[in-house]
Amino acid sequence: MGFRMKKSKKSNEDPIKLSGATFSALCAEIKYKDRADLMLIYLDVGSTLAGVFTKSSTQSASVKWSRKIIENYRNRDDEPYAILVNSGNANAFTGQKGHDSVQYIMESLSGALGISRESVLMASTGVIGEDLPYKKIIAVIPKLIRGLSLKKIEACSRAIMTTDTYPKLCHKKIKLNDDIVTIVGLAKGSGMIAPNMATMLAFIMTDAKISQEILQKLTRSSCEKTFNSITVDSDTSTSDMVLVAATSKVNMSTIEKNSDHRIKNFSDALESIMKDLALEIVRDGEGASKLVEYQVVGAMSDSSARKIAFSIANSPLVKTAIAGEDPNWGRIVMAIGKSGERIEQERIVIHIGQNIITQQGRVAVNYDEESTKKYMRKTDLNIKVDIGLGNGESRVWGCDFTKKYIEINADYRS
Amino acid sequence: MGFRMKKSKKSNEDPIKLSGATFSALCAEIKYKDRADLMLIYLDVGSTLAGVFTKSSTQSASVKWSRKIIENYRNRDDEPYAILVNSGNANAFTGQKGHDSVQYIMESLSGALGISRESVLMASTGVIGEDLPYKKIIAVIPKLIRGLSLKKIEACSRAIMTTDTYPKLCHKKIKLNDDIVTIVGLAKGSGMIAPNMATMLAFIMTDAKISQEILQKLTRSSCEKTFNSITVDSDTSTSDMVLVAATSKVNMSTIEKNSDHRIKNFSDALESIMKDLALEIVRDGEGASKLVEYQVVGAMSDSSARKIAFSIANSPLVKTAIAGEDPNWGRIVMAIGKSGERIEQERIVIHIGQNIITQQGRVAVNYDEESTKKYMRKTDLNIKVDIGLGNGESRVWGCDFTKKYIEINADYRS
Repeated sequence: MGFRMKKSKKSNEDPIKLSGATFSALCAEIKYKDRADLMLIYLDVGSTLAGVFTKSSTQSASVKWSRKIIENYRNRDDEPYAILVNSGNANAFTGQKGHDSVQYIMESLSGALGISRESVLMASTGVIGEDLPYKKIIAVIPKLIRGLSLKKIEACSRAIMTTDTYPKLCHKKIKLNDDIVTIVGLAKGSGMIAPNMATMLAFIMTDAKISQEILQKLTRSSCEKTFNSITVDSDTSTSDMVLVAATSKVNMSTIEKNSDHRIKNFSDALESIMKDLALEIVRDGEGASKLVEYQVVGAMSDSSARKIAFSIANSPLVKTAIAGEDPNWGRIVMAIGKSGERIEQERIVIHIGQNIITQQGRVAVNYDEESTKKYMRKTDLNIKVDIGLGNGESRVWGCDFTKKYIEINADYRS
Repeated sequence: MGFRMKKSKKSNEDPIKLSGATFSALCAEIKYKDRADLMLIYLDVGSTLAGVFTKSSTQSASVKWSRKIIENYRNRDDEPYAILVNSGNANAFTGQKGHDSVQYIMESLSGALGISRESVLMASTGVIGEDLPYKKIIAVIPKLIRGLSLKKIEACSRAIMTTDTYPKLCHKKIKLNDDIVTIVGLAKGSGMIAPNMATMLAFIMTDAKISQEILQKLTRSSCEKTFNSITVDSDTSTSDMVLVAATSKVNMSTIEKNSDHRIKNFSDALESIMKDLALEIVRDGEGASKLVEYQVVGAMSDSSARKIAFSIANSPLVKTAIAGEDPNWGRIVMAIGKSGERIEQERIVIHIGQNIITQQGRVAVNYDEESTKKYMRKTDLNIKVDIGLGNGESRVWGCDFTKKYIEINADYRS
């Protein structure tokens, strides 16, 4: 079902398109001089829009602006939407000046498009605390609008990169009754990644017809199991945002009731797109060399399982052991213990891949260190912990902790 | 007031001694073959003993044994105490076998000393999940007891090291009315260090006369402000323990009432010894090159201030910026924001040393990047955050995050 973009697209391949959405990207020299750092998504009249935002209490001016629009969402059929995104500057902790910058830019963009200010949204990613050079952005808005095209979605996915080493883009087609529906998503993020959104932006579009209420609900629940279930370094950004738009271009009846049986299919596809993007973010985690899926089952509750899973996934000692390809499972035990969640040592069964590591509160009788070591040389790992107490489950994804992470973050100002 | 041991003692200096306590250390080849890895502290009849233990739910068999003795403490004047400590093996997550090992060792030690099993305590530090070679320990107990001497406290401080690069030992003398009282402490720990105790062992002894009840109370409160206010990597160990003994050798009236005016002086000295040891642990943090004091004031409560302080001190992005000597204060803002604690951006004032960094929700008008950069080259740093909302305060200590940490932990199995 899923489709993962190849990292370098051959020029003779068809570009990804989505009916009802056009794209534009260019270099506004916000921070970078040699690459696009500003992009625009234009969503035709009739689109609905949903969003989820960082829970940080130091969220950026751009987040505050866009959040307000989603929170006060009102259905109207007469206007398009536009989403403007810049990289190189987070416009976070920039005081009143930061809010003013957003006002000026949104005024200019809505004016140039001839739509109301409540129809333009903004996202920003990059350095915290530096004033956004809003004049540079305003100066290129006419050119940005002129550049709108069905074919530039990949250019947009590149314009939002910061420490990302490659763009993240994926799409899929599904059938809802007899209608073929497309979903396309692009994302960025590789550091400051932790639950409750991270330095992570994702924009997902579908041509399905779906009410904002249902779209918002599905966005929130899918985010929880995907973008909010990954961690690179346990740090949470000021700037995160996931926006999901439905352009309504497919000639179908609107999905607007909770009982609509098409919701299941659509929701599965949305979650699958989000998961693909989320895992690409972890895979491209700063300095990461391995992607680890942590599965916790048998906990007292799902939320208890989640806490234990994140306690393991975020532990620097677990992460360095994974970098060193050392099946040092004692550190997993330590991380379970520090989670504060209810456990009984004798009941915990730890698996690394197919290898059973612990049983009866100690190393398993048949533990095979050589086979476990061999498994840990893989790039994609699965660590499963059965708490053995209840039915609570959770699955989160993390990466390892390498010298490269230190290099990137002791030098790069992000 | 405080006194910090020089790292290499000259041989003509008097060894540190404490009336009523004798010490012994030797190599039992538990893991290391070329250094002492087992030590014994013997406390004369009349001593009282207090303790604080890891909150981990995967705590070691040694922790469980010693905790039980402290929790069921009963005053008796007819027996000494003994504390046996090994490095190289944590005896954690070793199942029933781990508990049996402790039983055999405690039986052997109490038998050889001719005292009851409730008078012998044990602590262990090292690898998790490997069976403790208890027979090796039992074999050397007679030799260990024969070696007891007033002068071997430094040897003991070396025997408990794991990834520590130097032993941690300090002492001080204070006056309580007309009586001169000595306090001596030794500690180990450099990784898996986080609040709620860490791979951290500390043994503190005084010759004062003080009831167990008062001693336990002071131990708990002093730990909170010292050992439980440090972090190296946010990981919490299975094995931590702080034991404080009072040998009662000073000819003074017993401190046994909460109203005793000598408590203040004694408590200050105890806290100062614990703080010295705690900071040495951070300074010797795995791969650490800097010691950072994080002071949060003006929060809604002390506990809110503490959460914010630890959110900053544990942030990998803050820690790598400190390693890179980069005044990337945006990451401090991010860490405040992800703490989940109540703040108002406009009220936050961040100081790095004497430099005021932020005011009115943005960079301070007079922010001097050059001067801040220069300050960050120091080894000991102070970062102060005024939340500007209430009277809540907290002070915690952390270190930076360097490539060396990754090196140590991707290779060493701790």
